[in-house]
Amino acid sequence: MKKITVKASTSYDIYIERGSLKNCGNIIADTVRTRRAAVITDDIVDSLYARTVTDSLESSGFSVCKFVFKDGESSKSSQTLNEIYTFLCENNITRTDCIIALGGGVVGDITGFAAATFLRGLDYIQIPTTLLAQIDSSVGGKTAIDLPCGKNLVGAFKQPKCVICDSDTLSTLSDEIMSDGMAEAIKYGMIRDAELFELIASHNLENVSEIIDEVVYSCISIKRDVVEHDEFDTGERMILNFGHTLGHAVESYYNYKTYTHGSAVAIGMCMITARECSPQLLERLEACIKAYRLPTECDAPVHELLSRCSNDKKRESGSINYIICPETGKAEIKKVSVDEFERLMEGK
Amino acid sequence: MKKITVKASTSYDIYIERGSLKNCGNIIADTVRTRRAAVITDDIVDSLYARTVTDSLESSGFSVCKFVFKDGESSKSSQTLNEIYTFLCENNITRTDCIIALGGGVVGDITGFAAATFLRGLDYIQIPTTLLAQIDSSVGGKTAIDLPCGKNLVGAFKQPKCVICDSDTLSTLSDEIMSDGMAEAIKYGMIRDAELFELIASHNLENVSEIIDEVVYSCISIKRDVVEHDEFDTGERMILNFGHTLGHAVESYYNYKTYTHGSAVAIGMCMITARECSPQLLERLEACIKAYRLPTECDAPVHELLSRCSNDKKRESGSINYIICPETGKAEIKKVSVDEFERLMEGK
Repeated sequence: MKKITVKASTSYDIYIERGSLKNCGNIIADTVRTRRAAVITDDIVDSLYARTVTDSLESSGFSVCKFVFKDGESSKSSQTLNEIYTFLCENNITRTDCIIALGGGVVGDITGFAAATFLRGLDYIQIPTTLLAQIDSSVGGKTAIDLPCGKNLVGAFKQPKCVICDSDTLSTLSDEIMSDGMAEAIKYGMIRDAELFELIASHNLENVSEIIDEVVYSCISIKRDVVEHDEFDTGERMILNFGHTLGHAVESYYNYKTYTHGSAVAIGMCMITARECSPQLLERLEACIKAYRLPTECDAPVHELLSRCSNDKKRESGSINYIICPETGKAEIKKVSVDEFERLMEGK
Repeated sequence: MKKITVKASTSYDIYIERGSLKNCGNIIADTVRTRRAAVITDDIVDSLYARTVTDSLESSGFSVCKFVFKDGESSKSSQTLNEIYTFLCENNITRTDCIIALGGGVVGDITGFAAATFLRGLDYIQIPTTLLAQIDSSVGGKTAIDLPCGKNLVGAFKQPKCVICDSDTLSTLSDEIMSDGMAEAIKYGMIRDAELFELIASHNLENVSEIIDEVVYSCISIKRDVVEHDEFDTGERMILNFGHTLGHAVESYYNYKTYTHGSAVAIGMCMITARECSPQLLERLEACIKAYRLPTECDAPVHELLSRCSNDKKRESGSINYIICPETGKAEIKKVSVDEFERLMEGK
């Protein structure tokens, strides 16, 4: 079993091993003192993995209750959050018990936020079952729900007690969900690790399973490094937003329906690279993105995306931060006025 | 102007001065870098003080937007919270702006929670306008909303950037709201400061204005001391819950309608003192409580209260913590099984 330790305000371990789901009860029993756990998951993951997790927990002496909500981004809402709170109340979950997030990014984000706020915070464990959740949302302690006016606008910083990644769970992912995660993997290569970028670029969606363990480990290591330097997202951590300022706008323009998060980030990375970097770099990035069946562009009018960028929570009064990668493995933070950013994007 | 500095995870000052509302803009301008503020208040406080605060802020160069919700505990809900989030979105409040909580405990608690979670946290200022809010809820960084299944069940620890207490605002309080706050003042005397208890006990609701500045200052100092030792409420801070375990149950039994928080705490303090301490101490406590027109008992059946205690968030699996004061100025934390607590309360 590989282990990556994250030294944030509270230190915790990320365990990476094929088949670790079957052993999660032991890992969690070594991590928390309670023997009462509330598992939160969605209906798809529930049918695939909840039984394995519950059995393992019960074998390790846990009493387990479970809450299942409908799969999908639309569940990352204050309504589902209130349902989770009610479930925790009804099951008499106390401050010394723990919550387990079993699923993809939506499950991890909303469960983490529930764990950060119910009774003003209790322990939680992440068991991410998608590539995106394993390499991105389960590392770094960001939790959130969406508002009608925007994505991830309400949340908290809350570090899990541990994270358990079982790459076997990736084998049940659809191509679309796998692509979704690969967009973030490409991003990590672009911002921090030229070798990782080359490794990914020399494979494609059909044969990525050959390198997936290495990709997961490298991506988590990069995110760990960045997050340790900037837990509360006040500086360096911004480089993780490469492709995201525009990506969020793309997601929002299409009401979070047409494009997955990864697809939108892929479009965002290409848009900003097209305007700020060499044609050669753009060509390599686009080729890599296409190899994972991700889009490099969309037909949303630029001015529509820009008006959505200015609602982005990364925006500071009057100015906007965005990230460029002048070469693979290297990121720069740029801060310009909203006007300047609009001129750049509209090519004026 | 008196100043009390709270050294929590982030350090901040509490300013105590008659008339400081008129000067709040200057104080806040010295505390935060932004010049954009969102004022959150309720309809009663809005009609009394919002203009003074807004004028002062604007004189100090702030642009101000304001959200007003209906006065009362029933507003401390996820519904009002969502309305606040929407308001902050619509007014393009960013992570570098600040939120001002102007009002009593409900305003402070829900606004603080909004500030802790909107965009994963932005600066906020407390301007408490009731006695209870000045001496209790605005100090210590606890923020919360209620759930249908219980009070303060969702929240976060979030320290304000500063707190501005203007005792002139206390002159507009009804007797009931003043009594509400005095119950907590009596609690501070009981748990930590025998002299404060004597000072309060030698006055009554009619002439308390003579000593109110001293009471406010002493209570805030005590709360500061306790909170500094135990910011995240894992030990000593529990002594602040003297009267509260049963008090919460009383509030809940009567659906938060019949008794104010302070009245319920007064009943809670008497109930636990009657069962655990000397008749002499009970007599002194009851006399003091009655002098502030607070109740010493209620007609709720004990077993109904007990079932509500076991839903209290202070409860740990299978056991319950409660506080007793064997003499004025001295508190002890007791931890017993739920069964044992029930036997004690039912006098078996």
